[in-house]
Amino acid sequence: MFNQLGVIGCGLMGGSFALAMKRAGLVRRVIGYSKSPSTTEQAKKLGVIDVAAESALLAVSGSDIVLIAVPVSATESTLKAIRHLVNPGVLFMDVGSTKCDVIEAARRALGERAASFVPCHPIAGKESGGVQHAEATLYEGRQVILTPQPFTNAQLVQRATDVWSALGATVLKMRPHNHDAAFAAVSHLPHLLAFAFFQAIAEQPAARDYLSLAGPGFRDFTRIAAGEPAVWRDILLTNKRDVLAQSKRFRAALDALEALIEAGDAAALEAALRPISEGRAAWSLSTPAVPPGRPTAK
Amino acid sequence: MFNQLGVIGCGLMGGSFALAMKRAGLVRRVIGYSKSPSTTEQAKKLGVIDVAAESALLAVSGSDIVLIAVPVSATESTLKAIRHLVNPGVLFMDVGSTKCDVIEAARRALGERAASFVPCHPIAGKESGGVQHAEATLYEGRQVILTPQPFTNAQLVQRATDVWSALGATVLKMRPHNHDAAFAAVSHLPHLLAFAFFQAIAEQPAARDYLSLAGPGFRDFTRIAAGEPAVWRDILLTNKRDVLAQSKRFRAALDALEALIEAGDAAALEAALRPISEGRAAWSLSTPAVPPGRPTAK
Repeated sequence: MFNQLGVIGCGLMGGSFALAMKRAGLVRRVIGYSKSPSTTEQAKKLGVIDVAAESALLAVSGSDIVLIAVPVSATESTLKAIRHLVNPGVLFMDVGSTKCDVIEAARRALGERAASFVPCHPIAGKESGGVQHAEATLYEGRQVILTPQPFTNAQLVQRATDVWSALGATVLKMRPHNHDAAFAAVSHLPHLLAFAFFQAIAEQPAARDYLSLAGPGFRDFTRIAAGEPAVWRDILLTNKRDVLAQSKRFRAALDALEALIEAGDAAALEAALRPISEGRAAWSLSTPAVPPGRPTAK
Repeated sequence: MFNQLGVIGCGLMGGSFALAMKRAGLVRRVIGYSKSPSTTEQAKKLGVIDVAAESALLAVSGSDIVLIAVPVSATESTLKAIRHLVNPGVLFMDVGSTKCDVIEAARRALGERAASFVPCHPIAGKESGGVQHAEATLYEGRQVILTPQPFTNAQLVQRATDVWSALGATVLKMRPHNHDAAFAAVSHLPHLLAFAFFQAIAEQPAARDYLSLAGPGFRDFTRIAAGEPAVWRDILLTNKRDVLAQSKRFRAALDALEALIEAGDAAALEAALRPISEGRAAWSLSTPAVPPGRPTAK
């Protein structure tokens, strides 16, 4: 049981964490801060936070657990603003989708105090961002990746593990660069492709007609193109190298399929599509929580 | 009320049509034929069809409404096999995702009898194909595009419109080449991209790890990569020109976004992502059923 949760960034992720912690009875009160005062106000009105703080530092003051849920490029300035209150008596976590850059930012902002910061990435989200879409169940049944460093306080890593587990999530540990490579592949690139695809449709003269004819396949394929621009700007830029490398692989696979289409080779095209279709049909979100192989298992 | 529905191709689409017609009380009995006898057998066991026919021709014999629900490349041979029973007393429809080629196939196979064939494309589907996934509600609230030709029997076009409407669908009429261009953009290209993306992930050494970490965004983005290989082989080949043209547009949009990422231009990247995110957030499946502009309105 924590006494006070400080949430810095009261959006979908931060707000959902606050609601989940309350529902699980893990925290007595929640204090929140957002850069935009109207967001903080709304979070308070919705009962997501109990107290609105006027600064990030004030959201940390008196808290024994702090969640930083801001776009990753704001991590460093946020940590700088609160650094004087960062100490091993308090669990600091983030929810950023990239981890190498967040860890670098923490080292720069906090120096030795970075030991109190446990880098986290919950694999959860929704089509619509914002505190109004926050839900106590957002992290339930999801995976949360921790990327602790050798210098990270081991007790705080354990506490972070316990907290996410208590919210119904499965906790994994990975090395930051393995994390970033994996999520470039399965999350960041799909977002980039969905953005590019929606843009390509939207800029055509017949876009309005086309969009009115689109069905459930289109809906699901483009859902992530509604991602928050500031969040995805940061992710795509901070994980640039891995994202562009994954894009190259994708383009090669697209080239290969298009060559078969161009050639009108029905048998080869079907032979190429079959393992893809079967592979995707066999995949499901409920795959084993602990990935075998490379990533450091918990 | 029809006396007998003949379904040729008892998969997801054909089976769902049979169930929907029965549930709506629009047909007394359903006779079905599939190329694979085990599929026909399963359709009968599941109560999707009442009688298993031993040939396509026998599924047409005695029917006053016939649905052809086979991969589009099988349309011509199917129509050839039943041509002697194609006459204006019977409503013939298909469910193919491309229409120019289906109309050409009908002309070649049926000659003047093609007047009895009303080309249809219901915008409906599911992650999993096969008769075991057929549902009476598959077409409810969906759009169905008809692409009748000047020579198509007008009474049958009206009857087709009435049937789909009675199943809860909204019926639109379009010119075949407008249809094919629009669906290359909003359906065929997304399938191609999802296939290529899943393939690019699956062929990496760390694929197993990556797939175990993928979340809800990945699930939705790749759902259509589980599409049936034979169906998508045909669609991508028959609509090759439009699909490749749309792919070019997509690649240009991807190039532009990647150039901003490569340049590390945060402001320009966010400015590019914002209208995409807002555009997708504003779009929903419940957009007006009758598209304004180019397509021939009903």
